[in-house]
Amino acid sequence: MAKIAVLGGGRVGSAIANDLSANHEVTLMDFDRITLDRLSSKNPKLEVCETDLANEIRLKGLLEPFDLVVGAVPGFMGYRTLKTVIAAKKNVVDISFFPEDPFQLQEIAKENGVIAIVDAGVAPGLDNLILGFWDSRIHVQRFECLVGGLPVERKLPFQYKAPFSPIDVIEEYTRPARYMEGGQLITREPLTDIEWVDLPGVGTLEAFNSDGLRTLLDTCPHIPNMKEKTLRYPGHAELILNLKRAGFFDTHSISVNGQKVIPMEVSNQILFDQWLLEEGEEEFTVMRVDIDGEDDHEHHFIRYDILDRMDNKGVSSMARTTGYTATAMVRLVLEGKFVENGIHPLEDVGRSPGCYETTLLHLRERGIEVHGHAQEPENW
Amino acid sequence: MAKIAVLGGGRVGSAIANDLSANHEVTLMDFDRITLDRLSSKNPKLEVCETDLANEIRLKGLLEPFDLVVGAVPGFMGYRTLKTVIAAKKNVVDISFFPEDPFQLQEIAKENGVIAIVDAGVAPGLDNLILGFWDSRIHVQRFECLVGGLPVERKLPFQYKAPFSPIDVIEEYTRPARYMEGGQLITREPLTDIEWVDLPGVGTLEAFNSDGLRTLLDTCPHIPNMKEKTLRYPGHAELILNLKRAGFFDTHSISVNGQKVIPMEVSNQILFDQWLLEEGEEEFTVMRVDIDGEDDHEHHFIRYDILDRMDNKGVSSMARTTGYTATAMVRLVLEGKFVENGIHPLEDVGRSPGCYETTLLHLRERGIEVHGHAQEPENW
Repeated sequence: MAKIAVLGGGRVGSAIANDLSANHEVTLMDFDRITLDRLSSKNPKLEVCETDLANEIRLKGLLEPFDLVVGAVPGFMGYRTLKTVIAAKKNVVDISFFPEDPFQLQEIAKENGVIAIVDAGVAPGLDNLILGFWDSRIHVQRFECLVGGLPVERKLPFQYKAPFSPIDVIEEYTRPARYMEGGQLITREPLTDIEWVDLPGVGTLEAFNSDGLRTLLDTCPHIPNMKEKTLRYPGHAELILNLKRAGFFDTHSISVNGQKVIPMEVSNQILFDQWLLEEGEEEFTVMRVDIDGEDDHEHHFIRYDILDRMDNKGVSSMARTTGYTATAMVRLVLEGKFVENGIHPLEDVGRSPGCYETTLLHLRERGIEVHGHAQEPENW
Repeated sequence: MAKIAVLGGGRVGSAIANDLSANHEVTLMDFDRITLDRLSSKNPKLEVCETDLANEIRLKGLLEPFDLVVGAVPGFMGYRTLKTVIAAKKNVVDISFFPEDPFQLQEIAKENGVIAIVDAGVAPGLDNLILGFWDSRIHVQRFECLVGGLPVERKLPFQYKAPFSPIDVIEEYTRPARYMEGGQLITREPLTDIEWVDLPGVGTLEAFNSDGLRTLLDTCPHIPNMKEKTLRYPGHAELILNLKRAGFFDTHSISVNGQKVIPMEVSNQILFDQWLLEEGEEEFTVMRVDIDGEDDHEHHFIRYDILDRMDNKGVSSMARTTGYTATAMVRLVLEGKFVENGIHPLEDVGRSPGCYETTLLHLRERGIEVHGHAQEPENW
């Protein structure tokens, strides 16, 4: 039994804290008293601590008694929070998916003897682990990840609900998508190259370009073809593209009756209600990972089709798949199965012997089935 | 040769003034000096007069020397301007398409001995004339008019340019559509009942519900089935519906970063540039009118397919079809072919002997071909 601090009591942070509290002494830290009270009343094993996590000096002091920290704060404050935890010399698993380059913290993490596992969610996260595992066994030639979180109810016009702020989704829809193709870094317009994909248990979804490779672009330059695409119900991307082309996502201000407004901000406000995923609203997370490669003897094409739904306690699939991947990383560190100091995304963890297998076992114990199935080789 | 005042020097008003100036003494009145200078420099026969047409007392005085007036002001000031012209006891042809009920001016028009022809454009206008003509000859059972003005270049996402302000188009897209069906007045959501229609010289367009019957709902209660639909390139209506459903046309204010904004006004501003029909940009006007009915002997189904394009002087089809229908009405009044005092939309003119034939001849002289073709009866 370890002493663990979970920073951030949002949907994923609270799922992580609840999961870890079965075996550990867990303290959940958040600035919102109401959230903390609600969570501690549902789970008496949970310690809670009301604090402003942006106060770095205070946070460093608070972390002193803990064996390990989980970072689950909003992305905009993720990097600074991680830096504080590393400065406090605490091993850490992070799911804040901040925009900054985590390897800027490599030196200090190593100096401080800290294991810092970053991007420890479902995607980025689980797909990186799968790639790392295969990358340590065969010559991977192609990696492709298709992933999306979707509501069960398909309501027009968007057929979509956001598990996080619409502005973060729109940001994903406007950031250029970076890929590796034939050993070259390629940049594509997001929301393009729309294709239909049939997924078991779901039916047909559309996949389109999005910028999701993150650390893989740095850590796997030897893999010539890597791509991530976002999954939505068919029709979503075209509508978003049309809004974008019409100017509704423009970030320069326009004058409306003498008042300056930014179209993007107005659209975000309009979409906020439309895209709000209500507490308890049925949703699912679907991910397909394809690995193509060779060893000395033969060609391998392995496909993973992962589908997870909200559980009977109302924990969303997004919180489950992200949070339980993170708690698997906690387990690997606490059990001494992943011991390398420094900044490590999950492709590093997947390469480390036994870590892939333990993570898949950990997810299976929580009802998330992850299996690779050998496929007939495709032409590529 | 008559003395004619044309009120309003917009695209249609200037086309009307130029057309009439070939045979009459025409004075074009507008508040904008630059527009007037540009038009008079191109057409030396045109007198121009810079004045604020909203100043009713001044306008009444200015109209004193004229034999006939053409009203071509923006819709929002159309009704008050028409009222002033009638008070000045001048015969008038109006194309301002104001939202008010023109028959409120019936009494004063008759008292003052004024002929006031209203809604004298292509639609409303020419289609009403056609219906009136047939209504005076057979028992019309069904009238359907499909009409649209479209750019030649089909640019995504909207594939549309507006010959007038986007906010007027959005208003058409949000006002409930009223029809006569089986003798009953029916109200439908606009932009619904989308169907594809193949039109000669154009190809496939979509037709959807819009509120275009106007005076026909009052003047033709004996015709059991009457419908007007708007024509656009396929895909336009769905995008507009999606914007509408998403809330982009809402007229209640929302709070964006503490600032109150009205989504409809922001959308109008965004669409303004997207939908701006540039001077000289190629466009066309397409209209199909179906008349189904019976006389004592047989069933008649007559179809008119009208297609007009910008002419080689850069006069748009919208200005041509609207403006030259209006100048045909001027001709009918000046030649004594339409002599009834009071408020008259074009269904009244169409019923008056010889007026339909003269109007079609007038349009043909200007390159606009209007022919009814007998069709095989459909099941209706």
